[in-house]
Amino acid sequence: MENEESKTWAMVGGDGPRSYAQNSSYQRVLVDVANESMSEGIKDKLEFKNPCSDSSNICTFRIADFGCSVGPNTFVAVEKIIEAVEQKYRAQFRNSPPMEFQVFFNDVTANDFNTLFKTLTASKKYFAAGVPGTFYSRLFPKSTLHLAYSSYSLHWLSRVPDEVVDSKSPAWNKGSIQCNGTAKEVAKAYSAQFKRDMDKFLKARAEEIIGGGLMVIIIGGLPDGILMAQTSAGIFNELFGSCLVDMAKMGVISEEKVDSFNLPAYYSSAKELEGIIKNNGHFCIERMNTLDHPMMKMKVDVRIAISHFRAVFQGLLEKHFGKDDADRIFQHFSKFAENYDSVFNGATHQHVDHFILLKRNIN
Amino acid sequence: MENEESKTWAMVGGDGPRSYAQNSSYQRVLVDVANESMSEGIKDKLEFKNPCSDSSNICTFRIADFGCSVGPNTFVAVEKIIEAVEQKYRAQFRNSPPMEFQVFFNDVTANDFNTLFKTLTASKKYFAAGVPGTFYSRLFPKSTLHLAYSSYSLHWLSRVPDEVVDSKSPAWNKGSIQCNGTAKEVAKAYSAQFKRDMDKFLKARAEEIIGGGLMVIIIGGLPDGILMAQTSAGIFNELFGSCLVDMAKMGVISEEKVDSFNLPAYYSSAKELEGIIKNNGHFCIERMNTLDHPMMKMKVDVRIAISHFRAVFQGLLEKHFGKDDADRIFQHFSKFAENYDSVFNGATHQHVDHFILLKRNIN
Repeated sequence: MENEESKTWAMVGGDGPRSYAQNSSYQRVLVDVANESMSEGIKDKLEFKNPCSDSSNICTFRIADFGCSVGPNTFVAVEKIIEAVEQKYRAQFRNSPPMEFQVFFNDVTANDFNTLFKTLTASKKYFAAGVPGTFYSRLFPKSTLHLAYSSYSLHWLSRVPDEVVDSKSPAWNKGSIQCNGTAKEVAKAYSAQFKRDMDKFLKARAEEIIGGGLMVIIIGGLPDGILMAQTSAGIFNELFGSCLVDMAKMGVISEEKVDSFNLPAYYSSAKELEGIIKNNGHFCIERMNTLDHPMMKMKVDVRIAISHFRAVFQGLLEKHFGKDDADRIFQHFSKFAENYDSVFNGATHQHVDHFILLKRNIN
Repeated sequence: MENEESKTWAMVGGDGPRSYAQNSSYQRVLVDVANESMSEGIKDKLEFKNPCSDSSNICTFRIADFGCSVGPNTFVAVEKIIEAVEQKYRAQFRNSPPMEFQVFFNDVTANDFNTLFKTLTASKKYFAAGVPGTFYSRLFPKSTLHLAYSSYSLHWLSRVPDEVVDSKSPAWNKGSIQCNGTAKEVAKAYSAQFKRDMDKFLKARAEEIIGGGLMVIIIGGLPDGILMAQTSAGIFNELFGSCLVDMAKMGVISEEKVDSFNLPAYYSSAKELEGIIKNNGHFCIERMNTLDHPMMKMKVDVRIAISHFRAVFQGLLEKHFGKDDADRIFQHFSKFAENYDSVFNGATHQHVDHFILLKRNIN
């Protein structure tokens, strides 16, 4: 059921120094920061009528993490979810038998599930399963999930919109590798792709999540009215684009490949997200806020930023430029970026991280 | 929930020339040969009352393959199961909405799930999930499976019984690496381990399979009254044991390591299996027969036998002897075994493959 067009590259696998497992401290902080909103949301909004009504009288509660990568962040998040659900359950049904949890870890097929499985702890309180495939299509049978979770995955588009790499299109993104917000037609193309992808995601999850079930989404975004080009993250991406152009000029990598390269990512505003969710119509927004955390305001260590960037983008770059050129690019970028430390840390704005709690409408 | 003591080695991963994927034609033939018994069994014995009674009115049918390895055999088996279940369902409920299938592929954590997931076909008619962990303990929430399947996995013990590698025990298996059946105390120790393991397996599955749900077991065994030492498979194992002794004498590998090496496998008779299942009490035996197939009577090509042997045992040998010595052992065995072609093909008996269809009792 994997779509050929879809995002197929994954975070760097294994647990070595270049792995996502070792280079995802930012995403880890988000899990911690989101915990309060998430636990409160579960406490206030979760209802147990449905999960416990199956014929066997045993209560199985099914959780899925969409875009889990290789851990350990996903394990931390899942444990926090289970803790909150159990607390609510025990308060509501004092004398009922304990619930059993089944947790599904989803990511694209290229994800390193072997490492994910090997790092699952033996003492875990749930039954685990891995589910390979793009979350922009159906992955589970109808009405079988009670709580869905997706952290820092949904700003990844299923694909780069065709127009932005088409030199004949008014949306041609010449001179940039991202939706930096300054070119209107480019922004329109990226935004339309994001809407299509989110719609597919919400539609698929609406079929899989039971009526009344919850979905927690953490997603990178922008404050209203701020352009990607004005944020540290945007400046960092532009810098990477300049590095690619530099290498093409030196004849180290193909100019054509650089021209056809764009990041399949889109940072949306709260307003935009709200519009998409309301228009989709299957979920009700129970909570929506931005996550405030100290890392946002910290001076960024360029070397750490680059190693995190590599853990995320290596697969994508290897797919586009080939393995050898991808290696060369990261090597060059390390030297290249050091000269721009002040530019990078002089950004006037930061992106935001949206926290959204949705409830599946009861049909 | 993985037990430290448990079998943790897996079939050779990937899809290269030495992979299990490329060296499991015997197991593949079994899938085909078992299909008739399995399809008939599903047709006669499957009841749909339970799977369809959930609150959402959508019918999800859950299948699990215990000990799936990396495919493609598991995919073939699963497709045959789904075909039989759908046929029965359509005949019984002409106007009902189609069922949705969720298939869980289980094997030990060391199994190459990445390869398994990459070789899943896009056109598959089910939602797939991988479940890591030993099947000698619980892997699924209570009463959530409708049909369990396990092919050529349950003759693997969770461990070699301690006594057979203890020089002070009357069950010390000196001079052999398997339960060849000639030493009574050794056979008793192996048989007791098999019983303990099967009991654990049946107990765990009894909790996971809904009342009335089915379980198909295909398992290597022996005809009543025949010893392992009299069969081709047994002679092949003895030959491998002699090869190890030969290498220890030459000083290539450690004698102590050879003495402490035994195969964690046990081939049971139909009578023994029947006793264990009846004693366990959670399942009713709906069908039990041996699978008859031409490969049993074929002259065995020693080279092919060795490459199949390697695909299965490499992980185990690497764990016991280390990676380098395991390589040396397989190299030596290739030459060693060629001299014994006639011994190997002169066996008076063959092992059998049992087919068992069980139904979970309704509590």
